Amino acid sequence: MTRTRASLTTSLDGYVAGPDQGPEHPLGMGGMDLHTWAMELAAWQEAHASEGGITNASTTVIEEMQHNVGAVIMGRNMFSPLRGPWQDESWRGWWGEDPPFHAPVFVLTHHPRAPLEMQGGTTFHFVTDGVVSAHEQAVAAADGKDISVGGGASTVQQLIATGLLDELQISVVPILLGGGERLLDGLGDAPVSIELTRVLDAPGVTHLRYRLVKHRA
Amino acid sequence: MTRTRASLTTSLDGYVAGPDQGPEHPLGMGGMDLHTWAMELAAWQEAHASEGGITNASTTVIEEMQHNVGAVIMGRNMFSPLRGPWQDESWRGWWGEDPPFHAPVFVLTHHPRAPLEMQGGTTFHFVTDGVVSAHEQAVAAADGKDISVGGGASTVQQLIATGLLDELQISVVPILLGGGERLLDGLGDAPVSIELTRVLDAPGVTHLRYRLVKHRA
Repeated sequence: MTRTRASLTTSLDGYVAGPDQGPEHPLGMGGMDLHTWAMELAAWQEAHASEGGITNASTTVIEEMQHNVGAVIMGRNMFSPLRGPWQDESWRGWWGEDPPFHAPVFVLTHHPRAPLEMQGGTTFHFVTDGVVSAHEQAVAAADGKDISVGGGASTVQQLIATGLLDELQISVVPILLGGGERLLDGLGDAPVSIELTRVLDAPGVTHLRYRLVKHRA
Repeated sequence: MTRTRASLTTSLDGYVAGPDQGPEHPLGMGGMDLHTWAMELAAWQEAHASEGGITNASTTVIEEMQHNVGAVIMGRNMFSPLRGPWQDESWRGWWGEDPPFHAPVFVLTHHPRAPLEMQGGTTFHFVTDGVVSAHEQAVAAADGKDISVGGGASTVQQLIATGLLDELQISVVPILLGGGERLLDGLGDAPVSIELTRVLDAPGVTHLRYRLVKHRA
């Protein structure tokens, strides 16, 4: 059965990106420090068509994120710059011609655009009628495999608020960003029960995995 | 050597109290659910002159909080109601005549008041010249033992921002409050390096302990 899973890294104060996001700092001031733990791993390098890197307790987290993924959901800001060439259809994502998804990717946006087929099995579909529709399309496309949520925070929040997220892993890096984009915001009415299912303590990061169960209506 | 330690419980979205704090909901809507894990423990009941309760992996957390404490620092809202009898000197704290501190307690406030000596070794001192002064007085009073920070969030934030907090334990309860008082806010310029020193996974709560080290000027 398809499970919808998100795995994101936050600072100790809960931010997925620091303050003053913009072209020069796409992850905000200090935001790049959130991802050192991942980028230094061989498993991450390999997924991004690079070489080198180390193996440690976080390796399993990267491997799990890539395992059994039949479709991806992501927000528009994950796909394209905050400003710049978006509506002119020249933008083809951050990842080159062979993106590391190898599955259909459903991008939440307000701008209609024809599907964009890349190499290696990745096709970007642009969904303009909301997160529930994107999730329905992703379930159909996943064909029994899981749905991976690429982020960002707003997309994760919408999936939690609608009870559609089954698993949330928060990788907590012990830094304070003091501002920016918080992962968990405005979710006081989310119709879910949450339970910790695993703690994984790794160098420079602590991975907390939670199961979310939607309340019955 | 005196260490300054804080141990607080937050929701998964980082709140120490829920929205709409007031006389009927001193911890805000849903905020009481943060403390179920502690209040059900025999160690907590005993410290609050009660009986019964259970023992589990969280017991050690409660015991550590009470161990080797020579002084306490707390914010004014921890000592008295948000509204009501405060300046008339009739308020003697939430805890009855024998409070569970058994040490000098330094209350951060804007209202001068004579020290209030209670039973069992607790004396409340009201400090009006800021957190650094309160910390200095607490260090002197602790006489080599540790300083326990009772909260709330603002007091913890001031101690982190001044580099005076040595240890922060965050007990994360997997609920979403969606609003209220966040533990870690506005700390982007805090002059500290942070390192996880222990993870303790217990029923209904995950205890994350961090060491904070102040940067050299």
